[in-house]
Amino acid sequence: MSLLVVGSLGLDTVETPFGKATDVIGGTAIYCGVAASYFTGVRMVGVVGEDFPQAEIAFFRQRGIDLDGLEIKPGKSFSWGGRYHLDLNMRDTLFTHLNVFESFQPALPPKYRDTPFVFLGNIGPELQLEVLNQMATTPKLVSLDTMNYWIERTPQQLGDVLKRVDVLLVNDSEARQLASEANLVKAARQIHNMGPKIIIIKKGEHGALMISGGKYFWAPAFPLENVFDPTGAGDTFAGGFMGYLAHAGKVSDETLRQAVIYGSTFASFVVEDFSLGRIRHLEQAEISSRFTDFHTMTRFTKPWE
Amino acid sequence: MSLLVVGSLGLDTVETPFGKATDVIGGTAIYCGVAASYFTGVRMVGVVGEDFPQAEIAFFRQRGIDLDGLEIKPGKSFSWGGRYHLDLNMRDTLFTHLNVFESFQPALPPKYRDTPFVFLGNIGPELQLEVLNQMATTPKLVSLDTMNYWIERTPQQLGDVLKRVDVLLVNDSEARQLASEANLVKAARQIHNMGPKIIIIKKGEHGALMISGGKYFWAPAFPLENVFDPTGAGDTFAGGFMGYLAHAGKVSDETLRQAVIYGSTFASFVVEDFSLGRIRHLEQAEISSRFTDFHTMTRFTKPWE
Repeated sequence: MSLLVVGSLGLDTVETPFGKATDVIGGTAIYCGVAASYFTGVRMVGVVGEDFPQAEIAFFRQRGIDLDGLEIKPGKSFSWGGRYHLDLNMRDTLFTHLNVFESFQPALPPKYRDTPFVFLGNIGPELQLEVLNQMATTPKLVSLDTMNYWIERTPQQLGDVLKRVDVLLVNDSEARQLASEANLVKAARQIHNMGPKIIIIKKGEHGALMISGGKYFWAPAFPLENVFDPTGAGDTFAGGFMGYLAHAGKVSDETLRQAVIYGSTFASFVVEDFSLGRIRHLEQAEISSRFTDFHTMTRFTKPWE
Repeated sequence: MSLLVVGSLGLDTVETPFGKATDVIGGTAIYCGVAASYFTGVRMVGVVGEDFPQAEIAFFRQRGIDLDGLEIKPGKSFSWGGRYHLDLNMRDTLFTHLNVFESFQPALPPKYRDTPFVFLGNIGPELQLEVLNQMATTPKLVSLDTMNYWIERTPQQLGDVLKRVDVLLVNDSEARQLASEANLVKAARQIHNMGPKIIIIKKGEHGALMISGGKYFWAPAFPLENVFDPTGAGDTFAGGFMGYLAHAGKVSDETLRQAVIYGSTFASFVVEDFSLGRIRHLEQAEISSRFTDFHTMTRFTKPWE
């Protein structure tokens, strides 16, 4: 089944202790969409400026991504600059130019309006709601990412959209902030009451925790020798997660767990290079091999069996 | 097979956001020894003062712990006071009185000198080495805990004892510091070269990672609704880990993984109450049930199988 992805597309300039990349493609819809394209047909909704590289548009098409929902507007693309510390968990934002993204109003082409799987990337909750309002049929699964900015500034609108969301993807501090509760188990229960039946807490180098109906699934992070650039790891996780679920076409405890591992698999690849360098052309064998590594890393038997 | 445990015993005064406990038993040898006693015969080496409660000594005996290696000296027991922040990962030490522990010289009773499993708790590396020098036979498995204090002040002595150690148990910052390397994968490789073939990195609420010969095993932490007092979690982990291995009597990839989960299981229990409150009288069914929870939390299948 198809996956609808809504979010930012832009040009990033990233410095890490290991190098610098200037005006490389980035943004939620790109990281998520490209990762998901390994599993299923992706329909992308977003906006870029006229400066956005044609070769990259061609690359999206080559990956089978439907771009009817991608506006190309006069002006410049969204652009972000950041510098990572030696501890890659810390970064400074050097600049954020919204450019054409400032007036972004998601408009779904008619053929997108029955997409069964929907990922609402981290944009204003009123825009996320607007996407859902444009759907002609109720999606099978809606997932949403958000951040402290929206939790603090537009809690009412965020609350409105959360009521219609199945899966919330956040990091641990966002989960705590959203629920005003330091304990993650209790925070998850509060968030369940806001709408999402499934909460996925992305913990970076510490893995990911899925909480649904009082049940837990714990995924490790892949122990990498060289983390090169963490940008986009969360969005790439979302792409592997949602892409696999859309491919499976069914949302069960089993497919959700597999989807979390595919999310972790793709996140572990994307941080190995700047931008989408590592996930532009992955072989199926590489993906399966790393998925298997996650499996091996977590196996143990019960001594009494 | 039996387990030899060497480390501190004392009286702790602990404040958490949830309450205060005064002069309750604590220390590495106690947390580790009591946890291990659920699996195997434990031989304890340490020292207490005359103020150490007789009822607690009786409790150790009741748990089948051999106390021939426990000195009771004139004077007061080691005593530590700490206060945890609302974020339980942070604590302030309010006082540390070494008392009789200041002149501690481990002396192994002759019958202890062929113990096949040995845990060297976090004490000065020259004392840890002294224990190994008193062994009449080479143990099947020696594990060691240490901390930043010894890494900084007595690196030479620590290096000497590490050469004779099979398993190093440390937290992530200690592993990084010991190897002078920020990346954990690389740090583990450096530490392998110092001696320990197996490194277990305890990450508190983020679980534990075992690295042996380039292979990884990742154990989650149990998502607890009420973490009451984190004191002793690491030592209790060591007790579950070493106790199970000694019980199994063989060190294989399978038993090591199970041992990490038993360590995590006991650590998840001990933080639910002050001191050893929660692990004084555990039922076998409770232990198996939580072990099974860890199993359930990490299961997933490969989609292609």
